[in-house]
Amino acid sequence: MIKKISSALISVYHKDGLDKIIPYLKEHGIAVYSTGGTQVLLERHGVEVHAVEGLTGYPSILDGRVKTLHPKVFGGILARREENHLNQLEQYEIPEIDLVVVDLYPFEDTVAETMDEGKIIEKIDIGGISLIRAAAKNFRDVVTIASKGQYEDLYRILSEGDAETDLEQRKRLALQAFRISSHYDTAIFNYFNRDFDDRSSLKVSEMRRQELRYGENPHQAASFYGDLSAEFEKLNGKDLSYNNLVDIDSAIDLMREFDGSKKTFAILKHTNSCGIASRDSVLEAFNAALAGDPVSAFGGILISNAPIDLPTATEINKLFYEVLIAPDFEPSALELLAKKKRRILLRRIADKSQHMKIKSLLGGVIAQESDLKTEGKEDFVTVTKRKPTEEEKDQLVFANKVVKHLKSNVIVLVKDDQLIGMGCGQTSRVDACKQAIDKARRMGFDLEGAVMASDAFFPFPDCVELAHDVKVQCVIQPGGSINDKLSIAYCDDHQMVMVTTGIRHFKH
Amino acid sequence: MIKKISSALISVYHKDGLDKIIPYLKEHGIAVYSTGGTQVLLERHGVEVHAVEGLTGYPSILDGRVKTLHPKVFGGILARREENHLNQLEQYEIPEIDLVVVDLYPFEDTVAETMDEGKIIEKIDIGGISLIRAAAKNFRDVVTIASKGQYEDLYRILSEGDAETDLEQRKRLALQAFRISSHYDTAIFNYFNRDFDDRSSLKVSEMRRQELRYGENPHQAASFYGDLSAEFEKLNGKDLSYNNLVDIDSAIDLMREFDGSKKTFAILKHTNSCGIASRDSVLEAFNAALAGDPVSAFGGILISNAPIDLPTATEINKLFYEVLIAPDFEPSALELLAKKKRRILLRRIADKSQHMKIKSLLGGVIAQESDLKTEGKEDFVTVTKRKPTEEEKDQLVFANKVVKHLKSNVIVLVKDDQLIGMGCGQTSRVDACKQAIDKARRMGFDLEGAVMASDAFFPFPDCVELAHDVKVQCVIQPGGSINDKLSIAYCDDHQMVMVTTGIRHFKH
Repeated sequence: MIKKISSALISVYHKDGLDKIIPYLKEHGIAVYSTGGTQVLLERHGVEVHAVEGLTGYPSILDGRVKTLHPKVFGGILARREENHLNQLEQYEIPEIDLVVVDLYPFEDTVAETMDEGKIIEKIDIGGISLIRAAAKNFRDVVTIASKGQYEDLYRILSEGDAETDLEQRKRLALQAFRISSHYDTAIFNYFNRDFDDRSSLKVSEMRRQELRYGENPHQAASFYGDLSAEFEKLNGKDLSYNNLVDIDSAIDLMREFDGSKKTFAILKHTNSCGIASRDSVLEAFNAALAGDPVSAFGGILISNAPIDLPTATEINKLFYEVLIAPDFEPSALELLAKKKRRILLRRIADKSQHMKIKSLLGGVIAQESDLKTEGKEDFVTVTKRKPTEEEKDQLVFANKVVKHLKSNVIVLVKDDQLIGMGCGQTSRVDACKQAIDKARRMGFDLEGAVMASDAFFPFPDCVELAHDVKVQCVIQPGGSINDKLSIAYCDDHQMVMVTTGIRHFKH
Repeated sequence: MIKKISSALISVYHKDGLDKIIPYLKEHGIAVYSTGGTQVLLERHGVEVHAVEGLTGYPSILDGRVKTLHPKVFGGILARREENHLNQLEQYEIPEIDLVVVDLYPFEDTVAETMDEGKIIEKIDIGGISLIRAAAKNFRDVVTIASKGQYEDLYRILSEGDAETDLEQRKRLALQAFRISSHYDTAIFNYFNRDFDDRSSLKVSEMRRQELRYGENPHQAASFYGDLSAEFEKLNGKDLSYNNLVDIDSAIDLMREFDGSKKTFAILKHTNSCGIASRDSVLEAFNAALAGDPVSAFGGILISNAPIDLPTATEINKLFYEVLIAPDFEPSALELLAKKKRRILLRRIADKSQHMKIKSLLGGVIAQESDLKTEGKEDFVTVTKRKPTEEEKDQLVFANKVVKHLKSNVIVLVKDDQLIGMGCGQTSRVDACKQAIDKARRMGFDLEGAVMASDAFFPFPDCVELAHDVKVQCVIQPGGSINDKLSIAYCDDHQMVMVTTGIRHFKH
């Protein structure tokens, strides 16, 4: 079904790039209908234009709110090129329109630029959307160019394609038209919804795509939809992989808990921190984080809340790592790190994390608010006779932040602002506890005086018993188990401290 | 900004429920404009209707493709109720329209009902969408009813509300209009995209919502968007929680690997299987799955690929569990299980899992194909001198299926179609291996003759060394490490079998 374009309606907001097309309108003798500024531009380039006003017998009214909405326009777009419909066009003196070229009012840009509701509302395109939807519906006969991003497509059709299109081309252009119209109305919905927070439906429309080499595994295709360059400046290294992005997301969530009052450095593997420490200098923080589990650190994701200096870079370079994220890099540090060409170095430039998070699940999508609750000392309820010291409270705050960002079930052991042992992703809590203790010992840490944190309550007193066995005397947990009293009684019998927060932090 | 409705344009596809509204049109003396079937209905109920054709001077043309697209209609909807615009309405003899009532052509229903592209295309509504978008744009002055789902809203406005609305009401109705228009065009995009699989943008529009009590934790609000009733029939128990759904999703993914040739039963906690076994009867399979880790099974998610009979139900009832999923339940089994009112019993009725999966990440959304690759014996490459027996191959297939659905890093130990030990969610592979061995021993299993599976390659020979120490002689892994040769050499020196698949199964 090859069709040749012999008439066109052109009504565009952005006119840049249209000039390339103009010579071909003349060359192919295409009858052109247009309005306002587009008409002026075309005529300036010597195109003979039929004003839409002349066709409809109506001027543009209501400050341009109504221009093209008329049967003489829509009839020519929507008519099937069959006898019955063509006869009607003849009867009502409606010209056929074979090509519709529209660029919509820039609604999203206007929302980004102004808070003035009146101006924003005025940029809700009515006529343009109607034109591209009508043309796309009638793709069997009509060519649709629905945005300035497609002027190039039109150029190719008119130049190389000799103004001819086949059915597949026209259907693909119709797809693009609905891609644009659905995105446009989703953006309007989201703008109106700022006032209402209506969650009765879930809408995602993201037009920016970064194709990834593959997904979690090489046999899975994958893409990221969004704009990573708004969050990071990539200073060095290979392309980010799916797994890199998943890890970076976890790293950012973790590091958000630690303000700059102390330098904090963390090392993650498979989204879980295997080392994290706060110190007076970045170098010390890195060394203390690495000491938490130098085996797991191999191939890890590194993140710092403070700029990377040369001494730290020198130490980091001794490790094989995938990604290093920092607010900044001293020039000499960057120069050194960038010598390893494949290591990914990211400078954070903004925090774009989302309040609502979604994921595919069964036949639908599950959505939840991000876990943005962080407990401070003021949230602590001491449930044992012995009360924590201020220093113990500091360590409990640190441990409770770390436990929140590890996969459930999880137990962490912390001492001197350093993660010294953790068990995560366990199907039973006592296994996580055993694992944390075992790991701390293997790494050569002295557990005496360490604190223990749990992401959820203790169903049995087994964990506090294990803690006491290795001289851990101070424990934080959400509380809320009917068996809390057993753990508390054990703590009281053994001069241990237990603090509850009331806030569970499951993460899967 | 209270406004009283004195004129309305009504053009609807579904007319059920409209009759409730009709008396109020008359009571408030509302001037009504309408077309076709809607006009007939209204007139039958004694409403005096101005035909849109009379207003525009155009009949409905092109088989109804063009009816309302005319300045005399859109001018009256889009005019701001200000002097300048009202003067223009007067000049062009355009009546004000204060209320637009539309119910769109049922595009999605038509797609569900027929494969006939011509019929589907005809159900792409052009005029109706234009009307509701125009009315919604002008929400400061105009009331928009954009679907049959909102006739009830209109009824309340006309009856209790005395045909008056305030600005917030009208803006909320505008929000609903764009909620509907964006969904409508996303559905059209998805229909066209069946031919193209265009992944340049990500579009999700899901209108069915099931509110959840909370998310992963009580301080996080959450919802499921989709239709769970298409996948499960809930036979008993409390409402499904966020964490239940996450676990059920993992359970379904795991059980999809096991066809009905053998009865298979699995127990999951925090998305990870802590027990799974295949046996000749469901009862044996359940008992063998439970034996894998009876501690973790507490509060778990149970899934069977075969109907639950009474003997199995009797055993299951001794366990505290959250959810039991099965293709069916014998009546006596169901009766027994349902005595525990809070236990969730789900009968699977369909598999609705998705080929593409998405999740929120950083400031955007990451999407990847589901991991649908499952390796059979034909995919095995034996890299050691000793070759696996057929029985060993069977066990390797089983172990490789189980390892695929556990969180990385993971090592599993399998013997006689039963998971006897696993370490998952680990930041180092050797830790996962140690954990698996430790767990198998604690549960009292004899490891001699068991097989070991790894979700990714071995970076060092430490895992095969540990396996050999406990008399595990047969190992499966993807391969692909530059250090594979070290592990292979160790296996060859110790009469062990190693099989590689070439397919990694990371899961996070």
